Amino acid sequence: MKKMERWLRVSELAMRLAALGFAVTASALVGSDRQVRMFFSLEKRAKFTDLKVLVFLVAANGISAGYNLLQLVRCFVGMMKGGVSFGKGFAFVVFSCDQIMAYVTLSAMAAAAQAAVLALLGQPELQWMKICDLYSRFCIQAGEGIACAFIACSVMIIISCISAFNFFRLYGSNKGCKNSHGSW
Amino acid sequence: MKKMERWLRVSELAMRLAALGFAVTASALVGSDRQVRMFFSLEKRAKFTDLKVLVFLVAANGISAGYNLLQLVRCFVGMMKGGVSFGKGFAFVVFSCDQIMAYVTLSAMAAAAQAAVLALLGQPELQWMKICDLYSRFCIQAGEGIACAFIACSVMIIISCISAFNFFRLYGSNKGCKNSHGSW
Repeated sequence: MKKMERWLRVSELAMRLAALGFAVTASALVGSDRQVRMFFSLEKRAKFTDLKVLVFLVAANGISAGYNLLQLVRCFVGMMKGGVSFGKGFAFVVFSCDQIMAYVTLSAMAAAAQAAVLALLGQPELQWMKICDLYSRFCIQAGEGIACAFIACSVMIIISCISAFNFFRLYGSNKGCKNSHGSW
Repeated sequence: MKKMERWLRVSELAMRLAALGFAVTASALVGSDRQVRMFFSLEKRAKFTDLKVLVFLVAANGISAGYNLLQLVRCFVGMMKGGVSFGKGFAFVVFSCDQIMAYVTLSAMAAAAQAAVLALLGQPELQWMKICDLYSRFCIQAGEGIACAFIACSVMIIISCISAFNFFRLYGSNKGCKNSHGSW
């Protein structure tokens, strides 16, 4: 049991570090994404604010990075002090926040991926033309950002499972629960 | 404890019924969405297959509906028999499937919502024109479908919390866990 506790703590720490890193990278890549092209004497610009969903992606990953930084501090302080206790209330707050972060970052990533597919392939039936032939560098950088956001939200999903475990096991009593659950 | 068990069972049953109903409605609304308009002698059609993300939405909600139907049968059989037992393995399968369903339906809904925003408002910077002025009936029906998909995936998220509770509490022992968890 002690071994498992230790493994869980190290896992959570590593996951939060990874989520922080990938969320920051995703925000930086997408948030700095812009390209200027000259068509004869006409200057054409593509920037990430042209697609509102990319602004949402930057914001969601920025918030997720800030949140994971706070959680990392909490984890470190907990490990240093060793005996800082928190009960169901705090476990519920961590569980809820992790769930919300996982769902928000996933939504932002899915919506951005949809816009990226439209930018890459276009939708001729609706007269939406692909733009990645014109702004290839812009599209590549946005794609890298979305890939990082995908990894960041996948890691957030694993973290939300860990915090669900940490919260819900407080309600269990091995014997009683198995019996009561088993009657389904 | 028994009262809580009973409440949980009724909640899960009600939630799965609601998820089934809304997922079927979303699939039916989006899957039957098409509009034909005449511009002088030119016939123009809009159908849900024009946007691949709407096909993904129909498929995701169709699979979610089928899955919740199976789970409803499992719930009913469990309630009738009363003593059908399942352990950690089965609880893990239900937990995993519920999580996957919640994330897949949320992704599909977010991507479809992004496409809907583009269809409604357009993105003039990228020369993607809004199409809802031309195909208003098509857009309204798609919007209703996406709203149903939003409710269906919100309900799936609540269901995934219930099954997380049902699974992870099997690992808890009220006293031991609180102490071991408290050392964070």
